[in-house]
Amino acid sequence: MFEGHGLAVIALGGNAILRPGEEATFSVQMRHLHATMRRVVSVIERFNGMVITHGNGPQVGDILLQNEMARVKVPPMPLDVCVAQSQGQIGYMVQLALMNELRRAGIETDVICALTAVTIDPGHNNERAIKPIGPYYSEQEAVEIKAQRGWEMVEDAARGGYRRVVPSPPPLEVLGIKPLGELVKLQGRRTILIAGGGGGVPLHRQGDVYSGIEAVIDKDLTSALIARDLSADMLIMLTDIEAVYKGFRTRSPLAITNATPTEMMALMVEGHFPAGTMGPKVRAACGFAEEGGTALITDADHLPSALEGLSGTTIVKER
Amino acid sequence: MFEGHGLAVIALGGNAILRPGEEATFSVQMRHLHATMRRVVSVIERFNGMVITHGNGPQVGDILLQNEMARVKVPPMPLDVCVAQSQGQIGYMVQLALMNELRRAGIETDVICALTAVTIDPGHNNERAIKPIGPYYSEQEAVEIKAQRGWEMVEDAARGGYRRVVPSPPPLEVLGIKPLGELVKLQGRRTILIAGGGGGVPLHRQGDVYSGIEAVIDKDLTSALIARDLSADMLIMLTDIEAVYKGFRTRSPLAITNATPTEMMALMVEGHFPAGTMGPKVRAACGFAEEGGTALITDADHLPSALEGLSGTTIVKER
Repeated sequence: MFEGHGLAVIALGGNAILRPGEEATFSVQMRHLHATMRRVVSVIERFNGMVITHGNGPQVGDILLQNEMARVKVPPMPLDVCVAQSQGQIGYMVQLALMNELRRAGIETDVICALTAVTIDPGHNNERAIKPIGPYYSEQEAVEIKAQRGWEMVEDAARGGYRRVVPSPPPLEVLGIKPLGELVKLQGRRTILIAGGGGGVPLHRQGDVYSGIEAVIDKDLTSALIARDLSADMLIMLTDIEAVYKGFRTRSPLAITNATPTEMMALMVEGHFPAGTMGPKVRAACGFAEEGGTALITDADHLPSALEGLSGTTIVKER
Repeated sequence: MFEGHGLAVIALGGNAILRPGEEATFSVQMRHLHATMRRVVSVIERFNGMVITHGNGPQVGDILLQNEMARVKVPPMPLDVCVAQSQGQIGYMVQLALMNELRRAGIETDVICALTAVTIDPGHNNERAIKPIGPYYSEQEAVEIKAQRGWEMVEDAARGGYRRVVPSPPPLEVLGIKPLGELVKLQGRRTILIAGGGGGVPLHRQGDVYSGIEAVIDKDLTSALIARDLSADMLIMLTDIEAVYKGFRTRSPLAITNATPTEMMALMVEGHFPAGTMGPKVRAACGFAEEGGTALITDADHLPSALEGLSGTTIVKER
């Protein structure tokens, strides 16, 4: 059971906004967000402040598809700008759902949303493109696009198409985190901050010059970085499953209720956490716990009971 | 000459980002923004803090067109969400240009960008749709769209097409302005805030429930509201012309260097300021000056000399 009353960074997984296979309409996304935000609001009194981060996978995919389909009339924007647009889109929807759930609970807390740009670790400037983004193309389109735009394309055999892949370098610095941190500290429970959307707009810093890059940053790593920068007590990752499982795909999966980062990383090495889904979350959670914070991985429905120590996976360093 | 060293709200007109007839590519917009931000940075020491607001006309138009052209594959977003996306897009570009111009000048100031939602005056809930937005349609398309989506459509004879029109109600309350104001006050010169993009995402408040509406809010009115809420000393509107002119379209236009709000409003009534361009700016400037602030209308190139009292139009109440 989490005793503290400090600051919580709550990272919304994709499922908090949209479920696989659903059409990304405004009303569907708002319905999920209202349900998620109701849970978040129900635990608000446990903390002296909250920062909410979120992913942007399906939404930035749709924005890229819109850019593609309208390119004869509207100049397509580079990926960093599309990420910024998705922060606007999702940040607003989160803000609207949260404001209304706060009011429904009779709570007067303000909600503000900061666009977030993040520099990447310069050691990863030439990192291999691994993260598929945006629309699916035919083989012929993929060949043409590669020649014309220099994009790296990979085949997705399962979906029978080709997609662009971009690097996913680790975040180094969240720009503006100092004033935002002062704001969060000053406001306490009076204001909830939404930030770090989609892992942040990726920037490369060379000397004193910042430039946007065609990459995406893992939102869990950025959330952990924000939690660390703000000296948060707790990093909560809301995902589509109640807890992290050992042997998830085996016949006898076992929910992990409590673990140290060392234990979790040992299980990671043994291959218990899929690289594309739970892996990045566990890695980000362990990094945060390693520095002394409490990391919790659960789904929105179990958030209240997980904070009582009755569900979810809590990761804390040996004390 | 403006003597004070208080807070300035600087509203970027469309020309600060894009000129009429130009294609809205990323590089074109960044070029204009760099030029504008260089001027803004050159006067930074005159103030103890700065808030930057901006328009979104061409950009939200392009987003609406992308939504239209991709609608068979991507569910179109309502107008309020598109405005939020444009805040993300433009806010990021302003932030990037400003950060780089600050660094170029050797200034360490942080830049943060807040998504801004704004409630509208409930007395204007059923205001007539007057503001054309988004793509042009043929007459047949316009008829179909009106029947299918209930949009109000008007003919634009000059361009030979039909466009959607939406209401443009006055802003009532900028959500989150209290914590943002505390941030601005706390930070002083250490942080520049970007806010109020595109006039804000328009919300309707009914009791304790907020909902997005299909409208746009005049960015100059929202800028003036933000300036008032933050007790700014100065509201600077950067537009495409060095000063406001009396008899602008006549043979002998006369630049107005200094005026009171009363004098300006009298000229407005006489029809000196076109309703679609200078009218809203003058109205917003007069509202702000009427409450005791200094309003300045000029272009980016003349900003430094206007602050010396050598150009631009300065509006101050009789003292």
